[in-house]
Amino acid sequence: MIASMTQSNSLSRQSLSFKFDRGQLSILDQTLLPHREEWMLLNSPEATIAAIKNLQVRGAPLIGITAAFSVAIEAIQGRSKNELLQIIEALRAARPTAVNLMVCLDRMKSQVNSDEDADQCLKLALSLFDEDQALCQAISQHGSHLIEDGDTILTHCNTGGLATAGSGTAIGIICEAHRQGKRIHVFVDETRPLLQGGRLTAWEMQKNKIPFTLITDNMAAMVMGQGKINKVIVGADRIALNGDFANKVGTYNLAIISRFHKVPMIVAAPYTTIDYKIADGRSIEIELRSPTEVRGVSGGFGQAQWAPSEAPVYNPAFDVTPATLTDYWVFDKGVLDAQGVASGAILKWKDN
Amino acid sequence: MIASMTQSNSLSRQSLSFKFDRGQLSILDQTLLPHREEWMLLNSPEATIAAIKNLQVRGAPLIGITAAFSVAIEAIQGRSKNELLQIIEALRAARPTAVNLMVCLDRMKSQVNSDEDADQCLKLALSLFDEDQALCQAISQHGSHLIEDGDTILTHCNTGGLATAGSGTAIGIICEAHRQGKRIHVFVDETRPLLQGGRLTAWEMQKNKIPFTLITDNMAAMVMGQGKINKVIVGADRIALNGDFANKVGTYNLAIISRFHKVPMIVAAPYTTIDYKIADGRSIEIELRSPTEVRGVSGGFGQAQWAPSEAPVYNPAFDVTPATLTDYWVFDKGVLDAQGVASGAILKWKDN
Repeated sequence: MIASMTQSNSLSRQSLSFKFDRGQLSILDQTLLPHREEWMLLNSPEATIAAIKNLQVRGAPLIGITAAFSVAIEAIQGRSKNELLQIIEALRAARPTAVNLMVCLDRMKSQVNSDEDADQCLKLALSLFDEDQALCQAISQHGSHLIEDGDTILTHCNTGGLATAGSGTAIGIICEAHRQGKRIHVFVDETRPLLQGGRLTAWEMQKNKIPFTLITDNMAAMVMGQGKINKVIVGADRIALNGDFANKVGTYNLAIISRFHKVPMIVAAPYTTIDYKIADGRSIEIELRSPTEVRGVSGGFGQAQWAPSEAPVYNPAFDVTPATLTDYWVFDKGVLDAQGVASGAILKWKDN
Repeated sequence: MIASMTQSNSLSRQSLSFKFDRGQLSILDQTLLPHREEWMLLNSPEATIAAIKNLQVRGAPLIGITAAFSVAIEAIQGRSKNELLQIIEALRAARPTAVNLMVCLDRMKSQVNSDEDADQCLKLALSLFDEDQALCQAISQHGSHLIEDGDTILTHCNTGGLATAGSGTAIGIICEAHRQGKRIHVFVDETRPLLQGGRLTAWEMQKNKIPFTLITDNMAAMVMGQGKINKVIVGADRIALNGDFANKVGTYNLAIISRFHKVPMIVAAPYTTIDYKIADGRSIEIELRSPTEVRGVSGGFGQAQWAPSEAPVYNPAFDVTPATLTDYWVFDKGVLDAQGVASGAILKWKDN
């Protein structure tokens, strides 16, 4: 069976930072970017867990898919149902706050519980990959209609092919507009403290040959004041029913300065990001992270600590942008404007 | 004469990061802060020039004063008028864009041209130091009336005893309010790209035992949204007649988010910062700095580069905050509000 599976192209998958081929799972080690592009073989659940914990693979959708493939490979290797269920729980503990990881592993668990057959497990992992690619593709297509030839677009954090199995959400829209031949320029916020913009989005813009300029987060207002920005596009980690959304810290800041300069604020995310249990952003809990991230920087690129070692720090990973400061919500199902969202369109979509 | 001068206390001066005693000039090496506090002897004009170029001494007022003392010491050593004039020109070239350096050296030059006598040169250097301290003291006193018991204050960059001969401008106000017994808490923006907040203001808050919290620049909106900030206080590098002002990049960003949250935006600076030749901020030229500052960090604390080596960068050192987003201007002469500034109070002060 393994031979037949791995010889078929329909059973291999590849994206910017993920590869499954001939039964082997590899990821592009994101801790070494942008300076080195090295693929890393994940030949055991332990290797996958370590790669997730070390942020060698990151981005909520991509982590979930990687973990699902890790389970499928173990099924191919002939693990028992009990062993597979233990592996699923071990993978789940690698990043307890990642919703997509839980969703993907819950689906693998249901599969294993009903039928631990390797073919079925692999089929599900492949379909999780394909679903994520399709979501990215749909978001990119819908969102690209908001981008005009000549636009200069500001983006924050990293929402591209390093975070998803596809071309991404906010960056997916940018890539699609570029592919359509629209002449665009991207301003990339470096995104302190973890520098996903400076490290990863800058690398993706280079990789995709999209003209860009890197700035520090606090320069965005100045650049907008100079009239250089036409659109701001960001991703989302969680969206409330009224359209409020949580995203990487600094997004709320951008929403305020965008509104001040009358620049449209666009958020792009798959429907899976909608949290139907919360009415508005006030209920979104914000993860607080280690003070060391603000006192300095650390990564595959090296490390440096410039603040006093004992400096008290506040380090929220996310902030919440109110719907009242947002102009467009791009989902895989289509684009909503502020009027639509205010009239309850997000909930109506669920019911239809 | 040297003996008589250096034995008198009236001929020695000390501040947080500057020392002139027994004819010897020393500065606290700011490149080693916050991790190490090392004083550095400046025993020649060459040593002073190197310290200015290497940012071991920084802050526009402090650079000017340090250079003036360097000239005075050479006069004490018996240099000729021509030699002193050459030394002044060499010092001037150490940081061509620093207005205060030019002002202090112009005054030393006038002195040398009219009388190169060492006593007179030293007297002038001492008075430049005293003037700066008096300016800081007056700004701090006036500004402290705007601070209430229990306030939480956000500040940007470094405007304290590491930048001036006194307690500083924005930080001077904070220190004075603290000295008066007002219970205040300070949020310190790290101030990318050069990290003056994370490195220097955090250190000064520790040194002055003022409770503080360090954040990245893009967290300011979130903190304000939580209602945690009552005042924003910043310094200025240049102020136009209509009240527009240039300050470290990120200040305009803060002004927009402050207004959005109805938090008063306060700028503090000596009268010497007013540029009577410019009607508004549009005429303020903005220095663009090296891309390497945005691609990573580098300093006495170490270095790291996380962005792609060839990433295109925009790196303005300053931005311009419009008077319409500013609530109070604290000068050494007193405090102006938006109504006063709009009615031309800045120019009226000059005429009176």
